[in-house]
Formats: sequence, C-alpha cells, structure tokens
Amino acid sequence: MTHQALGAGVERGGSVGLVETRSVRLFTEERPFVLASGETLGPLDVAYETYGTLAPDASNAFVVCHALTGDAHAAGHHGDPEHVGWWDTMIGPGKPVDTNRLFVVSSNLLGGCKGTTGPSSPDPRSDRPYGLRFPLTTMSDLVEVQRALLRHLGVRRLQGAIGGSLGGMQVLQWELDHPGEIDDAVLVCASARLTAQNIALSAVARASIMKDEHWAGGDYYGSGSRPDVGLSVARMLAHITYVSEEALQTKFGREQRGDGRPTFGIDFEVESYLEHQGQKFLERFDANTYLYLSRVMDYFDPFADEAAAIRRLLDSRTRWLLVSFDSDWRFPTSHSTQIARVLRAAGRDVTHREISSPWGHDSFLLPVAEYLDLVDDFLGGR
Amino acid sequence: MTHQALGAGVERGGSVGLVETRSVRLFTEERPFVLASGETLGPLDVAYETYGTLAPDASNAFVVCHALTGDAHAAGHHGDPEHVGWWDTMIGPGKPVDTNRLFVVSSNLLGGCKGTTGPSSPDPRSDRPYGLRFPLTTMSDLVEVQRALLRHLGVRRLQGAIGGSLGGMQVLQWELDHPGEIDDAVLVCASARLTAQNIALSAVARASIMKDEHWAGGDYYGSGSRPDVGLSVARMLAHITYVSEEALQTKFGREQRGDGRPTFGIDFEVESYLEHQGQKFLERFDANTYLYLSRVMDYFDPFADEAAAIRRLLDSRTRWLLVSFDSDWRFPTSHSTQIARVLRAAGRDVTHREISSPWGHDSFLLPVAEYLDLVDDFLGGR
Repeated sequence: MTHQALGAGVERGGSVGLVETRSVRLFTEERPFVLASGETLGPLDVAYETYGTLAPDASNAFVVCHALTGDAHAAGHHGDPEHVGWWDTMIGPGKPVDTNRLFVVSSNLLGGCKGTTGPSSPDPRSDRPYGLRFPLTTMSDLVEVQRALLRHLGVRRLQGAIGGSLGGMQVLQWELDHPGEIDDAVLVCASARLTAQNIALSAVARASIMKDEHWAGGDYYGSGSRPDVGLSVARMLAHITYVSEEALQTKFGREQRGDGRPTFGIDFEVESYLEHQGQKFLERFDANTYLYLSRVMDYFDPFADEAAAIRRLLDSRTRWLLVSFDSDWRFPTSHSTQIARVLRAAGRDVTHREISSPWGHDSFLLPVAEYLDLVDDFLGGR
Repeated sequence: MTHQALGAGVERGGSVGLVETRSVRLFTEERPFVLASGETLGPLDVAYETYGTLAPDASNAFVVCHALTGDAHAAGHHGDPEHVGWWDTMIGPGKPVDTNRLFVVSSNLLGGCKGTTGPSSPDPRSDRPYGLRFPLTTMSDLVEVQRALLRHLGVRRLQGAIGGSLGGMQVLQWELDHPGEIDDAVLVCASARLTAQNIALSAVARASIMKDEHWAGGDYYGSGSRPDVGLSVARMLAHITYVSEEALQTKFGREQRGDGRPTFGIDFEVESYLEHQGQKFLERFDANTYLYLSRVMDYFDPFADEAAAIRRLLDSRTRWLLVSFDSDWRFPTSHSTQIARVLRAAGRDVTHREISSPWGHDSFLLPVAEYLDLVDDFLGGR
C-alpha cells in the first residue's frame, strides 16, 4: 500500500551523488555565539553539506534553508542512491538549483537535532543535555548561524537563497537583517506572520509533547524514555495540515483495510498512513527541537513594523521569487501575497506565482513540474 | 479575557426554565437491546430530558439529537439560570423548536457518558465498567435506542427531529431506517460521508487518547488515573476544526499575554483559549465515549448504495431543511449539498440553505439570527 509521499511529477536533471554531512565548531565556550536575546551559546557545532564547487572569487554561493523537520541532507545520498535528500528534486546538476554552476550550502538549523547544537546537545555547564535550558531562539539567530558557517567556508555574499515554509521565513529574515546580501531569493509557501489558526495548530502539537509525562520537563535524554507518544501525535496532526483535503481524498478516500466491521484499530487506509508517518518521525526527530523551531515560527513577525521593514529594504537589489500553492491551507497564497506587497512597497523586483497543485503545503518538496520550471527560469535568468 | 464561546447574535423567545435529567431502564439483562451487529446489551439505561407537554394524541413529539460531545441537557437549566443547556438558543417557548406547541425529547446517546449506558457503565458480566468490551455501535443503534425511549414515552411518530453534526447524521439514519416516521427533519452542518481528512482528524484524536498510557486499554476507570492528556489534546485539536480560521483570527489574532519574550508557556491568547477548552472538557467527558461516538461517525455512509437509499425514501413524506455554514471547514456545505441531491433524487421536499457565519462548524450552537429564523420559519410553517 501507500506509504510513499504524496505527489507525482517529472524528475529532471542529475544527482549530486554521494555526499556527506560534515560538522564544524563555529563557536566555543570561550568565544560563544551571541543570540539576539543577548544570551550566549558555546560550543556551537553546525552540521552541513555542500554541493558543487565554490568559484575562486566565491561568487557562486547559494544557501538552502530547511523547514521545521528538515536537516542538512538536502540532496544526493549517503551511500544508498535510493535514499536521497529531502530536496533532491530541486538541487543537482541541471536542476533548478544547479550544482553545475552553484556552490550550494545546506546546514542543520540552530536548535536542530541532526548535528547542529540544539536542546539534545551537552550543556557545558553541566555536561548533561540542555533540554529546556537551551536558549529560546529567533529567526535572526537561525540566520546568523548560517552566516557564520558561510564565513567559515569563505563566502561573504550569496548568489541566491531558497527555502520552503520555515526555510523561506529564514530567507526573508536574512534580507531584513542584511539587505542585499542575497542576489536571488526564492520563498516557497512561506509566511511573514502566522495566523491564530497556525499558532493554534503549533500549540496543540507542543501541548501533545509537553503533556506527555515522558517529556519530563524536557529532561528525557538518557532516561530510556522519550515523549514518543506526544511527538508522534504532533506529527500525525501536522501531517494532516501539510497535505490538502483533496490529496487525502484522492489517495485514500474511505478505503478500508478490514472487513468493514468497526474496530478501534487501523480500519481505514488513511489511519494507516498517519500512523506510519507518526512512527517514522520518531526515528529521526527530537521532541525538544520540535518545540524550539515551532516557537520561532510563532513569533516570526518581520513586518510588525511595516514602515521600518520597507525602509530597510529600499536600497537592496535582491530579486524575489515567491511561490505558493493553491491547495496549501497551512500557509495559503494570502501569506505570500502579503510578503509580495511589502517587498513591492520597498521597490523590490518581485515575482509571485501561485501554482496549481493538489498536494497542499507539501507541494514544495514534490516534483511539481510547473513549480520547478518556475524556479529554474528565475535562477537561470540571472 | 476571552474564554467565552465564540459567536454573537440576538436571543429570542423564552426559556424552558428549570429542568431535570431523568433516567429510564429501557432494556434489561434478560431482555436486552439487540444491536445491528447482532450483539446484545443490557441493562440499558437512557438519560433524557423533555420540554413542553405531550399532546393527548401524542402528535407533537419532537426529537433533538446531540453531537459528539453533547448530552441530554439541551435546554433550560438545572438550578442556575446562568448555565443553560447546549441548544438553549434553539429550544424553548417561542424559539424555533417551540415548546409552547411541541413536546421535545433530548437524550444522551448510546455509548455516552452522561447517564446513558456506555463504556463507563458497569458490565453485568463482571460488574466492572465495560471499557472497550462495550460493543461497537452504528448510527442505527443510536437511533433505535432513541426510538425505544419514545415508545416508553408513548410516542410513535415524530412531528420533527433536529440535529447538528453527528446529531444530523442520526436524523438522516432515522429516515432511512424508518422512512416517513418524522414529518419535519432539520439537519444542521451534517454529513452523509466523512472525507479522508475528516477521518484523519478523528484518527489523530483517538490516537492521542489511546496512546496515552493512562488509557490502559480502556480500563482506566477506578484506577485513579485517566487519559486526561490524550483527551485534552484531542479536544484542543477538535476545537480548532470547530471554529473557522477567520473566527480565531478575529478573536485572538496574534494577541500575546506575556512581555513578548518567547517561552514554552501560554504566550499567545489563542493558546490560553485552547488550553482552557482542553481542560474544561476533562470535567465533563469520558475518553472512551469519545472513541465510540467518533468511530460511529467514521463509518456512517448511508448513501454507499445510493440507489437503494433512494428507493427506501420514495414513499416518505418527510420535509427536509438542510443548513450549512459558509465558514464550516469540518463539514462544509458540499456535505449538505450531497445529502440534498440524494433526497431530491428520491422526490423529497428539500430546502438547503447555506448561511453566512464566521464561526465555522460551531455556528450550529450559536445565536446566528438568519439560521434561527430559517429553522423557525421551516418548523412554524407546517
């Protein structure tokens, strides 16, 4: 049956092939990272991958920003060509983010759980994992850590940056904090301001985790017990919001697994699918990281002072491509429209396109031909 | 602050005043209720309320069917006039379901937790609560228990029946099982077939309950421990789907409670609201009842054999009013449209009206003037 990702389309371009996730210590306890809040954090390690070759003048760097549950492994494979990175449709030789000409950097976010320092990392003050003693972060903090990585790699400007959902929010924050540092910015189903419903959905996911007694105030590491129930339920809920009603209906409808007699087991195919998504997630994600990164999204509101935001962008030369999907009900097109409006008010060159795709918010990860062509044209047109 | 129900409008009519919930044993262990599955259940007690006076010829009986988390206490109060039943806007002297002329019967559903036999009731085979040994039920079972109550009250035909959401589904099943037994049928934001997304949302709610280790396979009664975490998270999630995005945005937006510095507490007003909804629910509802009644909804598919359904209704004289709300995304208007289409194919007299209301699925419980007028006109017009 049907545990594959939803979606379909045409693959294009080649693969970056075998890649590895590397790690670098960008800050130490003695020379820590200073967060926007003024708090400090060190040591700070960042896990990252690169695809393509940096030009001698470092002019071809391109950043990929991951979404809530992403990681550094965006493209290529780690040994098994059947298991590729989460944005392999987007990144590779001949693909929209073309590694034949770009040097692509993808890193795990600050607060993450796939190699970058986060709540599961050891706190040097105690040598125990941080848990909730890890500092609360902001979108700017996520950006600054990526900028520090780029400095380490010898990069000071970006030919481009791309991100979907939380990834796109980082690109927008990047521009506001460092206007013009990115030449071409691509935001896919992003938002500059979560609605009450968006926050509510995040709040339920967090409540599910934090009310799980195995969460233990965030200090579950090494206890042999984790908030797996809370995290899996959070993922099941989130997953419903990542796909459209139409996609679920087309793929599963009311298809049943049993003999038609009701039970409290997995009677419907859609139940099996969700259960699988929830369980699979436990193998790769940390509950506290879910809390930290979802909270960053809740608070992200870069246009709260719209006039100030516009003033900051007046002298930027960044070109913008905004993509939304008509079936995305987590961050619908109206969110991208709002971003486009403010960017245009600052005189920026903005293309905003709504793509028709039945797959909802998840479309940004899927091989939707019109979408990939659009990004390809935009990035290739420079 | 803002823990009141969403919604606003104009109250009309009077109150039925002080009422009491009564209980009757309709079936015994020796003469049990026979479910559609062939299983038997006894004793079976039903909790119910009545409003108004039964005419000597028993011609003025009217049934109110409750939704997933409702109970028998639909109108009036139990001593404190400030705390009225869940459909007091609809039922009372001079209200759409007019107790000046109707004898209104409202009962707690089979499998419920507010007085009618359900999973929390003692199983005579063991004298311990049933838990998951309570039989799985169908929509027809819920209807037959209500019909048995009416027989007990001396009623054989209904001047009318009304229900919202799961309540409307019961009215529809009633007509299919006993065509023409109801003169006037009112279905409010009902559905004849849950979508994959509907089932998915129910599945996550159930998973939240059943994965809570305090659920204990359903045998938590008397243990001093209950699946409160699972049930409260289920309620928080469900609540998001009962209100529209617009209603949440209007009422809460991004309003914050704290000083703007992120925490993992209740930072946003919408978080406070959801938390309150989740906790309040624990005082009045049983987790196993949530499982049983939500499963009945998943399986409800009375038009699976559409031709057979139409044939059954050809000789019915029941008049239909279907109401949906434009902001309801749990059971949107398309669900009512489908019901209307099949009823009309059987030659039935059907009025379907979509009411504009910002309050989503919950609108059916709220004093939306156009909606109450519509029901009033329909029921008063006979």
